[in-house]
Amino acid sequence: MVRKLDARRRDLREVIGGLRRPGGFLSEKVRDTARRIVEDVRDRGDAALLEYTERFDGVRPQKIRVPQREIERAGESLSPGIRDSFGVAIDNVRAFHENEMDHAWERSRAGATTGQRVRPIRRAGLYIPGGHAAYPSTLVMSAVPAQVAGVQEVRVCTPPGPDGLPDSYVLAVASLLGLEQVYAVGGAQAVAALAHGTESVEAVDKVIGPGNDYVTAAKLEVFGIVGIDAPQGPSEVLVIADAGALPERVASDLMAQAEHLSGASAVLLTPSEGLISSVEPLLSGEPADQVTLVHVENLAQAVEISNRYAPEHVHIISADHEAVMQDLDAVGMVALGDFSPVALGDYAAGPSHALPSGGTAAWASALGTHDFLTRTNYIHFTREAMRNLGPHVECLARLEGFGNHAASITTRMR
Amino acid sequence: MVRKLDARRRDLREVIGGLRRPGGFLSEKVRDTARRIVEDVRDRGDAALLEYTERFDGVRPQKIRVPQREIERAGESLSPGIRDSFGVAIDNVRAFHENEMDHAWERSRAGATTGQRVRPIRRAGLYIPGGHAAYPSTLVMSAVPAQVAGVQEVRVCTPPGPDGLPDSYVLAVASLLGLEQVYAVGGAQAVAALAHGTESVEAVDKVIGPGNDYVTAAKLEVFGIVGIDAPQGPSEVLVIADAGALPERVASDLMAQAEHLSGASAVLLTPSEGLISSVEPLLSGEPADQVTLVHVENLAQAVEISNRYAPEHVHIISADHEAVMQDLDAVGMVALGDFSPVALGDYAAGPSHALPSGGTAAWASALGTHDFLTRTNYIHFTREAMRNLGPHVECLARLEGFGNHAASITTRMR
Repeated sequence: MVRKLDARRRDLREVIGGLRRPGGFLSEKVRDTARRIVEDVRDRGDAALLEYTERFDGVRPQKIRVPQREIERAGESLSPGIRDSFGVAIDNVRAFHENEMDHAWERSRAGATTGQRVRPIRRAGLYIPGGHAAYPSTLVMSAVPAQVAGVQEVRVCTPPGPDGLPDSYVLAVASLLGLEQVYAVGGAQAVAALAHGTESVEAVDKVIGPGNDYVTAAKLEVFGIVGIDAPQGPSEVLVIADAGALPERVASDLMAQAEHLSGASAVLLTPSEGLISSVEPLLSGEPADQVTLVHVENLAQAVEISNRYAPEHVHIISADHEAVMQDLDAVGMVALGDFSPVALGDYAAGPSHALPSGGTAAWASALGTHDFLTRTNYIHFTREAMRNLGPHVECLARLEGFGNHAASITTRMR
Repeated sequence: MVRKLDARRRDLREVIGGLRRPGGFLSEKVRDTARRIVEDVRDRGDAALLEYTERFDGVRPQKIRVPQREIERAGESLSPGIRDSFGVAIDNVRAFHENEMDHAWERSRAGATTGQRVRPIRRAGLYIPGGHAAYPSTLVMSAVPAQVAGVQEVRVCTPPGPDGLPDSYVLAVASLLGLEQVYAVGGAQAVAALAHGTESVEAVDKVIGPGNDYVTAAKLEVFGIVGIDAPQGPSEVLVIADAGALPERVASDLMAQAEHLSGASAVLLTPSEGLISSVEPLLSGEPADQVTLVHVENLAQAVEISNRYAPEHVHIISADHEAVMQDLDAVGMVALGDFSPVALGDYAAGPSHALPSGGTAAWASALGTHDFLTRTNYIHFTREAMRNLGPHVECLARLEGFGNHAASITTRMR
């Protein structure tokens, strides 16, 4: 059932508390199970991988690594229309991410040169969830930024279906992107394999991608051995709309987000009582349980609520959308105007759909090239520049009790 | 005792194994203790903070938040020379980080506008270790990038000394930087306070900074509730030098890194047997136990070893240093040439000394403004642009079984 909330003249904290957002800590049981799986795969390699796959996915793949001919076959069997749509999505995601590269720079002042170099990480592991459904779009959204960043070795893990092979659309996207290292393994065991390596799966430097609680717990377990991305929870949208918004379209946006079901949140924030009463009857079925319609005082209050909630997506439908966006902080992606439904961004507009959710937008960003790049700082001083700065370093090092640090300067001051 | 290794004609993996590098997983006992402390502080707030501080730091501070007059007093009592040296360090660190900001961008093609906005996180928590020693330089190296990024609320936690106040140099740096929220609390309890908030300590969005195993474990515990930086282990340097390097200076660089003691690694990689035999007698005392002298085939082999080891620092002393750096991957900071001792970077050259160590340089970077910024992607389509892209999105959404996503497009195609 659709929930309704009146936020006018109410304490903001209370309103936020009233918005649905599940999640929170992973249970200790999930963490313990994930830890045991990670340690077992680390210690026993492929044998453990195959056992867990049989137990959790109900199938024992003939080979953990998907044969190249299966990837090619999946690519070849795409219908021209679908191939074209994936092609457009890939092109747009590539073009978008080519704009967000880090760039090297250098500065020199009086013989003191400092700078920053940018390079891709060497090996990335992408986790693509599967099981009940398949998400070839998620492979587009994580592999393309890795490729734009220049990562040489991209490995993909995704659970096998009943025939022991991953979803054929996921394989087809791998083929379109020229990815050759695809492994039919999912869950915590896949994360363990990517982090520690097995006979079949070479280890990587960083593991990226959404998954269920066991996948998330396994990522936290291996963090430090490898890099990981921020944990991603269920999907969320806040639609901020005023009286001019068309109810049918607003309802369609809410129902789109809500169809992710378990835990998804679709929230309308509007000062228009008329919009609420015309949207409400258009919401029905199971997804409607994920929807909350909030009557706000004005758009400024909607922004305040959003900034506290830190949502994954905001969709602004208002003549003032630029001004509303200007005031928004802490949000993963913003869709502006009636002709920018969030679904465009989910599939093909350009930005990755791997976004911070569950409040992590307060400190995390959309997946992008930054996640696949490292920056190396460097310093290069002339004798003169060293002698100018040296005495300050000697002073500070001594003050902290690091006499040898000071001495490494002193020996060069003579 | 200094260790020596001959890497010539030996398997790279074996050589890497021979280099000292402690660490690895946090023990389950440390993790459990940290989890209990985090939960206790979350549930009981200041009362728990004060109890843990009394237990671990042996003192019960009168106030958890350091009074403003104490911060000012520490600033005023700095000698002019020390104030000057901190001032130079702060200026250089600020100038360096002003170069590495992310910048907003936007692109438009046929009515399809996409872009990326960059904003600082709202609230950052900085952990500055203390106890046996004080690290005012670490406050410079983490607070200045936060300020350059534009973070409005910077909170600092650092353990109290016997008088219940943090180290006076740390307070003095807080005064120089205009930081007003300093808390006399350390350890896992400080991380818990920053993540969950207590009566005295307001919660933040991200917790940054090095610490002991309990601090690291607590950060892993709260990751997801707040952001954290990559775990930092003991300090490391690889000095890559050829026969032209001066033994006295190379020895001083090794001894500087080695004086961090527990777990620190200082490694010389050189093809020159002469350099090894003249450096060795210059190494003595406890720090010498942290040093390894490696005889390599040539500089190319030194680079290969470094790229596998992924060190925190590399110092290159060779006429070919530009070429060596070009081949280096996976390193936090590079110091180039004889007049660029790593100690310059540790205190005052510009780059933050908060660096990836323990092999994390393969995927992590030096602390910088990036750690305090978030990127928000946005899309803004005209009716025309939406109608061009829409059919592809409908196709891909249906293929993944998301009919409502497709419908949010279809309703706008009419």
